[in-house]
Amino acid sequence: MSDPKSVITRLHGAGGAYMHNLIKEYFLQLYDGYGEVGLDVLDDGAVINGIVFTTDSFTVRPLFFKGGDIGRLAVSGTVNDIAMMGGDPIALSLGVVIEEGFPKSDLAKIVESIKNTVEEAGVHIVTGDTKVMEKGSLDKMIINTSGIGVASDALKYNFTVLRKTRQVKYEWLVPMNLRDGDKIIVSGNIGDHAIAILSSRQGIEFEINVESDVAPLNKMMKAVLEVGGVADAKDPTRGGLADLLNDWSEKSGLGIYIRENDIPVREDVRNAIEFLGLDLMELGNEGKAVLAVSPEMARDVLDTLHKTPWGKNAAIIGEVRKDIQGVILETAVGGKRLVTRPVGDPVPRIC
Amino acid sequence: MSDPKSVITRLHGAGGAYMHNLIKEYFLQLYDGYGEVGLDVLDDGAVINGIVFTTDSFTVRPLFFKGGDIGRLAVSGTVNDIAMMGGDPIALSLGVVIEEGFPKSDLAKIVESIKNTVEEAGVHIVTGDTKVMEKGSLDKMIINTSGIGVASDALKYNFTVLRKTRQVKYEWLVPMNLRDGDKIIVSGNIGDHAIAILSSRQGIEFEINVESDVAPLNKMMKAVLEVGGVADAKDPTRGGLADLLNDWSEKSGLGIYIRENDIPVREDVRNAIEFLGLDLMELGNEGKAVLAVSPEMARDVLDTLHKTPWGKNAAIIGEVRKDIQGVILETAVGGKRLVTRPVGDPVPRIC
Repeated sequence: MSDPKSVITRLHGAGGAYMHNLIKEYFLQLYDGYGEVGLDVLDDGAVINGIVFTTDSFTVRPLFFKGGDIGRLAVSGTVNDIAMMGGDPIALSLGVVIEEGFPKSDLAKIVESIKNTVEEAGVHIVTGDTKVMEKGSLDKMIINTSGIGVASDALKYNFTVLRKTRQVKYEWLVPMNLRDGDKIIVSGNIGDHAIAILSSRQGIEFEINVESDVAPLNKMMKAVLEVGGVADAKDPTRGGLADLLNDWSEKSGLGIYIRENDIPVREDVRNAIEFLGLDLMELGNEGKAVLAVSPEMARDVLDTLHKTPWGKNAAIIGEVRKDIQGVILETAVGGKRLVTRPVGDPVPRIC
Repeated sequence: MSDPKSVITRLHGAGGAYMHNLIKEYFLQLYDGYGEVGLDVLDDGAVINGIVFTTDSFTVRPLFFKGGDIGRLAVSGTVNDIAMMGGDPIALSLGVVIEEGFPKSDLAKIVESIKNTVEEAGVHIVTGDTKVMEKGSLDKMIINTSGIGVASDALKYNFTVLRKTRQVKYEWLVPMNLRDGDKIIVSGNIGDHAIAILSSRQGIEFEINVESDVAPLNKMMKAVLEVGGVADAKDPTRGGLADLLNDWSEKSGLGIYIRENDIPVREDVRNAIEFLGLDLMELGNEGKAVLAVSPEMARDVLDTLHKTPWGKNAAIIGEVRKDIQGVILETAVGGKRLVTRPVGDPVPRIC
């Protein structure tokens, strides 16, 4: 019963190669040509009639973890999906499915966290749905947030700047805007969320005082777009940098070159990753953006990121290159390796 | 652990009094004044910047039932939520959470059904999300669909007609538009979905050859709005007519008078309801609308419904009345009873 050819396995939820194949084999047939950015682009969201529209279901365990909870995650995740398209998020829906026996006191904490996070982001919960499943038929709670956003003046300005360096088909942040020479910027330390989730789980035998980075990034993205020259942005959640950069490479038809030494990582997180035998490139994050920026504007974008609360540790970690294929990592010791989409999930159910 | 004061119970998912209290106590604090029709209205969806936005999670069991499946239900449910606001649905999101071990052959059938239903409705799936949960942590599958819609010419025409009979604050189909004397129309037979679901479950010891009514109703609603004079529309899903009519009464501040003899019900469904000791007023439906229509236009709306594939058995079942309080049912034998919001769920997990 665990043959991934005939049944769904955990691999299909891992944000890597299996998930992409599942989506292509089953869900892509639903694409019917609709939308300025449609289902076929398989990006953070779609664009229809000038509206960014996105959805995300959250199954994170534990529900409360160091630095956050499922409520903060559900708001941030969908706000970020909209922001990574270049949209200005305006409204979210909230669909909650709860297991019978769930403590109301925990529900109160989660709703409070949702409230605080929508206020922080400056967005609004406008509609919702509540379902209850019998005890034993759901592990506690699933939250779905969907969201809509609009094109901001900042986005329009970003493209007036970007058009100085290239022709642009989509005035949204999509991988097809990437060009040879674009700088790859990551907005801060990688790995915090996955390691915080791991260390919040019962029975985990390592201690580390790191909090999840989970945060709504729409204000950071607005600041960056006001600088201009951003070709695409994406948040390295499930599948981490490895999946994100492979996505960019596949959809743009260009290579990506990354220097491991330039990826910002907390020292204790790096030690934990090594201790646990994990791959930094595959770890999920929930408060980080990866940007592809025209080389002319990369320094200004970086300086702006450093001035925001979310981008203090932002760094240029590599470039888009037409002379290579796929994603190449220059390792810390000077070697080079091809980074492929993850197969398994180093830390399952991080979102 | 089953005290509804401290934990979530099945009652909270029953689409009745407990669910409304849960929503008011926990989720309504998320309302911040945003939207033309905001979270506070607790209607089928919200309206923001002229866009109808709605969400629904589907936990129906079994996944495949007589006349439909979770895929058809998920598309229809969200299309109908938009249509019941008077919106013209344009795009849906699809969030699927799957249990490890789920057969791919079943997934293929569900995606095929989704595809057929979006084509039938003339809407588009534009964005999605897939998660996998470990075996034993989810009963097979949950689908969330969210959707957006816009105001159609038909909706605008509807309100030019309705304004001849009253002042209207909202140019959307909301309970606040109801007035004394409005006719209550139901678009067809009540009870088919709940009874079809029940009879599709294993171990149920009655046989009845009835199919679920699950269907997208946006084309029916468009035809009705082109006639004009519709004050509000709502689909009697969880909680059935009892919950819907109490909602109308509470939000409009008016009474509702219903004649049981005028409610269309299939003979075999009525027999099954009696045999099972269920209350017709509390049974959920997934392909029916209840309309409040100005008395001047009620006959024309009814005639139009009869000409559509979905409204052949439509009937006027009562009136809005300012001289009574709450929902009063004139029973088949001539008595009168107050209809309250349901407390329990006659058939759990119908949607």
